[in-house]
Amino acid sequence: MDLWFTEFHRDGAGITIKVKKTIFISRSKYQEIAIVDTYEFGKMLVIDGLVMLTEADEFIYHEMMAHPALVVHPRPDDVLIIGGGDGGTARETLRHQRVERLTMCEIDEMVIEACRRYFPTLSKRVIEDPRATILVEDAIKYVKGATGRFDVILVDSSDPVGPAKGLFSMEFFTDLRSALKEDGIVALQSESPFYHADIIIQIKDGLEKAGFRYVNFYWAHIPTYPGGVWCWAMASDVYHPVEDLGEGVKKREPHLFHRSPLRYYDLHVHRAAFTLPRYMKEFLKRCGKGE
Amino acid sequence: MDLWFTEFHRDGAGITIKVKKTIFISRSKYQEIAIVDTYEFGKMLVIDGLVMLTEADEFIYHEMMAHPALVVHPRPDDVLIIGGGDGGTARETLRHQRVERLTMCEIDEMVIEACRRYFPTLSKRVIEDPRATILVEDAIKYVKGATGRFDVILVDSSDPVGPAKGLFSMEFFTDLRSALKEDGIVALQSESPFYHADIIIQIKDGLEKAGFRYVNFYWAHIPTYPGGVWCWAMASDVYHPVEDLGEGVKKREPHLFHRSPLRYYDLHVHRAAFTLPRYMKEFLKRCGKGE
Repeated sequence: MDLWFTEFHRDGAGITIKVKKTIFISRSKYQEIAIVDTYEFGKMLVIDGLVMLTEADEFIYHEMMAHPALVVHPRPDDVLIIGGGDGGTARETLRHQRVERLTMCEIDEMVIEACRRYFPTLSKRVIEDPRATILVEDAIKYVKGATGRFDVILVDSSDPVGPAKGLFSMEFFTDLRSALKEDGIVALQSESPFYHADIIIQIKDGLEKAGFRYVNFYWAHIPTYPGGVWCWAMASDVYHPVEDLGEGVKKREPHLFHRSPLRYYDLHVHRAAFTLPRYMKEFLKRCGKGE
Repeated sequence: MDLWFTEFHRDGAGITIKVKKTIFISRSKYQEIAIVDTYEFGKMLVIDGLVMLTEADEFIYHEMMAHPALVVHPRPDDVLIIGGGDGGTARETLRHQRVERLTMCEIDEMVIEACRRYFPTLSKRVIEDPRATILVEDAIKYVKGATGRFDVILVDSSDPVGPAKGLFSMEFFTDLRSALKEDGIVALQSESPFYHADIIIQIKDGLEKAGFRYVNFYWAHIPTYPGGVWCWAMASDVYHPVEDLGEGVKKREPHLFHRSPLRYYDLHVHRAAFTLPRYMKEFLKRCGKGE
């Protein structure tokens, strides 16, 4: 018997992946969580029918979720991850020796527990590193009570359906800005530019209305995500993601650059990732203050 | 009845696309050629079961196939396209006013005829522009008899199976170098870095052994291609694809930059496209002379 998992990106297109076996499947208070083993991509986490990560390409998503903001900020002492229950973004964040305290705020304990068991290469670091604190909490409420606390916030949410819906609202963007120190930086996963231009425009508009001085987008290719291409937003009142990218981080975190454990990100890739193909620039120009 | 087309990239993964109807299907002397209408991507050309192009994202492939080499070469008077029977690469090439003569050498007349009929936005330009000549010929033989003739050669081949297999051989790379003028540039489509690292390494190795001084790779995201990511090689004895990228082309072809018809490519994207993610740099380093 051949088993195939298919995720439909819209009604008329999808990715199909051959499955060896289902390792875990359960419904939490918030969503359906499944972990399957695949022939092509190793183990894969699927939430409400959507691919969250696979062992084969999670490195791209997690490196690009964490490093750009952490590299631009000159002193990322206090970092908050919203979502990210699998531990991948925390693993990348904790590679930065400068990070003194990492708080991970994940609403769904079952995601944390399942990934702790089945994705140790992602979750091990955040469990073992004494700098990390895991909170099982609704981040929407959490950021309201965290005024001026963080240097960097990484919003590693799932798609804007189910429990993550509020993470794409104007109110949340305003609360995010308040939860940052004055020179803080927030980075947010922002969906596929090929399929979800509308969501990207909504995020840009929301971050600008929340008052951020700099709002920029960057992108990477991710084979198992819709269209194979993904975006992130980065926003700050003080730091421009490319103009303020100094070489200082090479002295601060030399292990990230010399004999680096990273497989996607470096400072060249950083600059290139903020260089958007024309069609992305054009749909961003059509809204708000322009790119 | 729901109709779905599925292309399997390897045994365990693929893309699945909902089809409205089959518009054309026939077997030529070389391959099976199908054109279907899809809900998500408009009309789609499928050869031997593999997606060659869709109306929704062909602009990315064709812009990135044609412009980088044509922009780096200061005088692209004589251009050869190998394959490219759909006309998309020719359309992009003919946007360059500097191009005096374009020869397109496509082995399969049925591809040309079917695309002329069903993809007029791709094929119209090459049919109507007096600078273009279409040859229905085996490019492998053609380049052997074309010593020192071309400024730019664009190898817009299908995948290295069927009639395109010879377009990935050492002998062909040597003949390509001979068919170029001394300062000529060749660009070749080079498959998906996520799925076909072995083919990319073979191309790099072949171009270096053929004697090219500069061999570099660049990439773009293409939603309907395997893994959503694609590579091209560029090789020349004289021009480095980034270091020799002057701003002169903006004066030579101003219409490509100001109110440009292009939707993916510009000079910023050019430089970013040659910036490879670490995993690509690493597999390229493991072969030949390094990246």
